[in-house]
Amino acid sequence: MKAFQAHPADLADELKRLPSEEAREAIRKLPRDQAAAVLIELDREVWPDVLADLKASELVGLIEELPNDVAADLIQDLPLSERRGVLAGLTKERVSEVAALMKHAWDTAGGIMSNQYLAFQKGETLAQCQEKLRNLAEVSEETEISYLYVTDDESKLVGIVSLRDLVFGHPNRPIEEVMKPDVKHVWVDDDQEQLAQLFERYHYLALPVLERGGQLVGIVVANQVFDVLQHEATEDMQLMVGLSGEERALTPWPKSLSRRLPWLCVNLGTAFLAAAVVGLFEETIAAWTALAVFLPIVAGQGGNAGAQTLTVIIRDLALGEMSPGDGRKALAKEVLLALLNGLVIGLIVGVVGYMWKGSLLLGVVVGTAMVLNMIAAALSGVLVPYTLKALRIDPALASSILVTTVTDVAGFLFFLGLAALAMRW
Amino acid sequence: MKAFQAHPADLADELKRLPSEEAREAIRKLPRDQAAAVLIELDREVWPDVLADLKASELVGLIEELPNDVAADLIQDLPLSERRGVLAGLTKERVSEVAALMKHAWDTAGGIMSNQYLAFQKGETLAQCQEKLRNLAEVSEETEISYLYVTDDESKLVGIVSLRDLVFGHPNRPIEEVMKPDVKHVWVDDDQEQLAQLFERYHYLALPVLERGGQLVGIVVANQVFDVLQHEATEDMQLMVGLSGEERALTPWPKSLSRRLPWLCVNLGTAFLAAAVVGLFEETIAAWTALAVFLPIVAGQGGNAGAQTLTVIIRDLALGEMSPGDGRKALAKEVLLALLNGLVIGLIVGVVGYMWKGSLLLGVVVGTAMVLNMIAAALSGVLVPYTLKALRIDPALASSILVTTVTDVAGFLFFLGLAALAMRW
Repeated sequence: MKAFQAHPADLADELKRLPSEEAREAIRKLPRDQAAAVLIELDREVWPDVLADLKASELVGLIEELPNDVAADLIQDLPLSERRGVLAGLTKERVSEVAALMKHAWDTAGGIMSNQYLAFQKGETLAQCQEKLRNLAEVSEETEISYLYVTDDESKLVGIVSLRDLVFGHPNRPIEEVMKPDVKHVWVDDDQEQLAQLFERYHYLALPVLERGGQLVGIVVANQVFDVLQHEATEDMQLMVGLSGEERALTPWPKSLSRRLPWLCVNLGTAFLAAAVVGLFEETIAAWTALAVFLPIVAGQGGNAGAQTLTVIIRDLALGEMSPGDGRKALAKEVLLALLNGLVIGLIVGVVGYMWKGSLLLGVVVGTAMVLNMIAAALSGVLVPYTLKALRIDPALASSILVTTVTDVAGFLFFLGLAALAMRW
Repeated sequence: MKAFQAHPADLADELKRLPSEEAREAIRKLPRDQAAAVLIELDREVWPDVLADLKASELVGLIEELPNDVAADLIQDLPLSERRGVLAGLTKERVSEVAALMKHAWDTAGGIMSNQYLAFQKGETLAQCQEKLRNLAEVSEETEISYLYVTDDESKLVGIVSLRDLVFGHPNRPIEEVMKPDVKHVWVDDDQEQLAQLFERYHYLALPVLERGGQLVGIVVANQVFDVLQHEATEDMQLMVGLSGEERALTPWPKSLSRRLPWLCVNLGTAFLAAAVVGLFEETIAAWTALAVFLPIVAGQGGNAGAQTLTVIIRDLALGEMSPGDGRKALAKEVLLALLNGLVIGLIVGVVGYMWKGSLLLGVVVGTAMVLNMIAAALSGVLVPYTLKALRIDPALASSILVTTVTDVAGFLFFLGLAALAMRW
């Protein structure tokens, strides 16, 4: 590894590509501060693997270099037996700082917040606050001094101060006279997805994190939210088609296999359902084999139209852009679109069917089935994610597989059913 | 509209849902500063519609409330005829500030940067700089004073100063003694997608924007990048299935129709291709109609497996996580997975085929076709996006439609071709 000049994110990248053995070896060989920097950048899911060989004393050395929130993640990951040994190796102050962050689930505001901010107490003069700031300057390089808060005796957040006002105000003024009250905040147990939506929607640079009682316990800064946003977007795309939500192109194959195969089996089950529908009409097809030629067209078009509707709905749901009532409006719009698209596509397919096979009846049957299947696609594209949501399941989960099932089954039923009726007539 | 307490982003949201007439009326009725705040939040694409009725004088009033970068966007959108009238209404200083931002394409660093930063000149003392900062404090509320830069005589960026160092340093020291040289930066013509990748990967809070000659011309702050990230993620998902990349659940239907229908027609073309393959084997199917029942299974499984591979590759490409050589590794992994998934799924389908139709031959044919089609799915899931990229087309564009075509065509060829061979034998 070309260690010394590369950015930790790039080193982490190389590390991920190494076999576990070599990755462990590499992280051990790095100077502690660099190993810590690399660890920060590594996906949390590969940590156990990379850190498996380290002794408690080595872990302590590493944790000493980590910021509190990352240290908390690491310690939370350890088996309880190891955890005790590691905590024993840290200073009392460090343990209490880290422990304060450990009780929060990783996917909440508490889990991603940092405690690198500065809080002054109500009643302090600007001179006192400036002195605090000056002293701090020598202690920590990481504290985000752009975010200066004011709390009361009970550590409850009462205001925010701009550094400018703090530095240029009259030294004898109490801090509460220059602070801005009514600070926007998030709760410590807020879900990270909601949090990301807030940042995305209102373009905050940072938000203070409060306990439900109002105590200031941390801040979340904009750049910490990037990963959440990317993670959520990737997850949506992946869940739709039956992936884990966390798969990467170079995720080791046994892991990929264990997540993909079960969903492929689910898909197989739904495919048998569609096949059973075709099976119902085997005699019809035996008597009129041209029908078999049009099966993939009816199913394929329905599948694509359904995927269009589904993709739009899933994304708007994920971005929190659907208000109550919007679902109904979207459904109406999608059905209208399906009707219009269906008429155009149905007409083309109908004409081709007539010209290709010389049968007007085939043209009418396949054209009509197409219109109906487009409507089925629109309905399922909206209703599948909304139903999953109502069941408190992620609206994206396997939704593409479900919608395709509807469009296959409905498409074959409409098409072959109409054909059977037409033949009888 | 419940105007006075709502956040501008929420007002913008309501505005988007109104018919054009009412939206125009509403924006006119708002106080100027609020109208400006709402405008900032509105998607750029609806601006022309919402602003259509405003006179030049009204536009000038509005622009006076807008930050420079947004004002530049607005003026760039105006027809040339109106543009002159509006520019005439603004102060000279404002025109030059806004014009400086107008030459950059909206999707470059220059297009999203702001000029709300502060630059000191090399040679100035800390006392002089502090004085500048103090005066500025009364001028502009928006300047991000966390980002203080140092430039030379030719406005070239030479360093960055922390506010802490500036405020607490000895007043007689020249600024270059407390600055940090070697500042990370982006170029003014860098693509916004690259920019977003940088922020996401390295967690920057802000980056200075330089002309190719090294002159400092703006900054991009982390919260300005959120929209880019969300936009790119949404675009990827949508392009894959033949949407515009900008569609929302409540996008007016004529707009949705005009983008979806052409891709549905493309999909139809590819479906005819698959149908033509089935057509080649019509006699085979006439002699052995059970084959028709298994057509949707072969196609459906290939389609789902292809979508899994494609989704992983597209996202990694978009996030800039594929280094040269990774494509080949991913291809090898996907083919291996396809083989394993294919063997399991093929075995199940083969057994079901044998038991359902009582034909061992059918079981062997459909099972073998399944394994082969899974491999075709893996190959196309990797090669389609890489080929699009090599052709300098967005790797996501209609990629799902293309992969499905491959899996349909290949699946039918393998399945019906093997069946025809088996029957002859």
